Amino acid sequence: METVNLELGADSYSIFIGGGLLDDGDLLRRHIGGKQVLIVTNETIAPLYLDRVLAHLSDYRVDAISLPDGEQYKTLDTLNLIFTRLIEMNANRGVTLLALGGGVVGDMTGFAAACYQRGVPFIQVPTTVLSHVDSSVGGKTAVNHPLGKNMIGAFHQPKAVIIDPELLSSLPERELQAGMAEVIKHGAMGSLEDFCWLEENITELLSLNISKLTYALKRNCQIKADIVSRDEKEMGVRALLNFGHTFGHAIENSMGYGNWLHGEAVAAGMVMAADLSVRLGMCELADAIRLKDLIASSGLPTVPPDASRNEWLDIMYRDKKVTDKGLKLILLRRLGHAEIVEGVSEQTLLATVNSKDLLGFE
Amino acid sequence: METVNLELGADSYSIFIGGGLLDDGDLLRRHIGGKQVLIVTNETIAPLYLDRVLAHLSDYRVDAISLPDGEQYKTLDTLNLIFTRLIEMNANRGVTLLALGGGVVGDMTGFAAACYQRGVPFIQVPTTVLSHVDSSVGGKTAVNHPLGKNMIGAFHQPKAVIIDPELLSSLPERELQAGMAEVIKHGAMGSLEDFCWLEENITELLSLNISKLTYALKRNCQIKADIVSRDEKEMGVRALLNFGHTFGHAIENSMGYGNWLHGEAVAAGMVMAADLSVRLGMCELADAIRLKDLIASSGLPTVPPDASRNEWLDIMYRDKKVTDKGLKLILLRRLGHAEIVEGVSEQTLLATVNSKDLLGFE
Repeated sequence: METVNLELGADSYSIFIGGGLLDDGDLLRRHIGGKQVLIVTNETIAPLYLDRVLAHLSDYRVDAISLPDGEQYKTLDTLNLIFTRLIEMNANRGVTLLALGGGVVGDMTGFAAACYQRGVPFIQVPTTVLSHVDSSVGGKTAVNHPLGKNMIGAFHQPKAVIIDPELLSSLPERELQAGMAEVIKHGAMGSLEDFCWLEENITELLSLNISKLTYALKRNCQIKADIVSRDEKEMGVRALLNFGHTFGHAIENSMGYGNWLHGEAVAAGMVMAADLSVRLGMCELADAIRLKDLIASSGLPTVPPDASRNEWLDIMYRDKKVTDKGLKLILLRRLGHAEIVEGVSEQTLLATVNSKDLLGFE
Repeated sequence: METVNLELGADSYSIFIGGGLLDDGDLLRRHIGGKQVLIVTNETIAPLYLDRVLAHLSDYRVDAISLPDGEQYKTLDTLNLIFTRLIEMNANRGVTLLALGGGVVGDMTGFAAACYQRGVPFIQVPTTVLSHVDSSVGGKTAVNHPLGKNMIGAFHQPKAVIIDPELLSSLPERELQAGMAEVIKHGAMGSLEDFCWLEENITELLSLNISKLTYALKRNCQIKADIVSRDEKEMGVRALLNFGHTFGHAIENSMGYGNWLHGEAVAAGMVMAADLSVRLGMCELADAIRLKDLIASSGLPTVPPDASRNEWLDIMYRDKKVTDKGLKLILLRRLGHAEIVEGVSEQTLLATVNSKDLLGFE
């Protein structure tokens, strides 16, 4: 078992990573403070893993709620289903919420935990690559608004994150690939060494080599944990983790949540960010192309959809990365190093947004 | 102008109290960090005071949203109207929300500020007695769920609270009286000296003597601020502020929000708590009767409604004051001093709940 510690003062917690951890009842129970547990999962995950989790919790008053599966259900209305179930089970402030699912389940469970009776503890048991390396690290929780992604949320840290890479065997290939977008992102914006390791090992990761996966997940959690512990509330350096996300959110939002998976949109968004970085003279074309190639070899899109591009700028200006000074973009300086850039002209931005041939500068 | 400082580390803020403060534009602008402001108010308050606030903000990008008036609208659906307006105005993380209204507007504005883009600043300009002394102090924000009051919320401290007691002249008499319930509560559970002062001055407070009001509001904010700064997240001593509230919430919830005003329910709830305290031998009957008399002389109910009493116990056991150890009640030891009591038998509790003659022990 690998352990990554997040140092966040009173909110510190650990991420545990290892094949078979879903069956480690002691590890789970050690992080439950009270007597009540509500497991939040979805219709896809419940038949696969719910009973295995319930088996550890016979000494608790446990209830479970199964939400509809998909980003399009990450809404205030679905969140309210969790609140209703909590009140119906007479859950008090000692209740622990347990998120068993991917990023959507994790985001909603964490936000429900942040708000129920003004804050109760929660534990993450993520079941997808995306949630292993991204949404389970750092305490960002949220739901979407019809006009913008993750617009309503809270910073609320879990008591523990338990990652069992064996759960990935039940993940559809498309979602496995989509999750790799965040893995690639962490290399591209944070660590050249990890980026090179990914170039060599991407095939084995996609074929679910558990020891390679455990290593990659640990490294990704470390990279993200290092940044989050320096900037829990995203006042500065944490914004770098949004590499590919401003473009990606525009794609997701304009295409309708759930049509492009989050990771797919981020993948194409990273290529767009790389394209813009080269246009601005910040980044060598060769680096940008290596990034694009790694994305392509993961089976991820390197070209955004053609439809709705005229909406993207509006959506981007509604994004959380906008300040009074304008759009805050995360751009590539070189592989392993991204930077926050403000004041990019609308003309240059539009050149990337409207390009039919990203990185086709030659 | 009187100032009460809340010492909450990085979340510290000040409450400013004084006749005419609504027209002090400098004081308001000093607490606005960015360029965008959304004023949240309601249909009753907007025609009275909105223009006077807008007059101070000509240098900002300002929008205003007017919510329907009443506790029955303190819901996730109404909250979402605020989020929609924020996104429509392209509000970024630098936006300041300004709550102009009573407790309902304050609670919803504060909770919207806690959640929008995971947290933006807000300022309270409360317009009722209840919000002057209660909901504007301490950073508790929430909306109701059909099954329980204030079940969904956050701790989120304002940047400043600006209290102008002259605004109370527009308050209906019933709401003025209802607000006194929280003023009386602070004396009863926190300060014998203030309780005695209230016995002498309640008539002048109800006839809106501005200097007496300024003094009473300052003292109330100080009493509450002192408790909140010792226990921001209600892990211990802050629970004392819920004196009268467990019974009060049961009354409000069972009668339907808005039929009994919050303060009216708390008033009857305090008499019930006093009755139970005497039954348990904790408190002298004479002290309990002085409390009941002060409540009566404020024009507030000292007898709960007859209807729905059979539901109250269920509602009380769903309340936030329930722990794994059972119901946590706030009971009176003597005037000026309340205590947290656990383990009260259901039989004794029912004797108070079903009593047709509270405190009629003679």
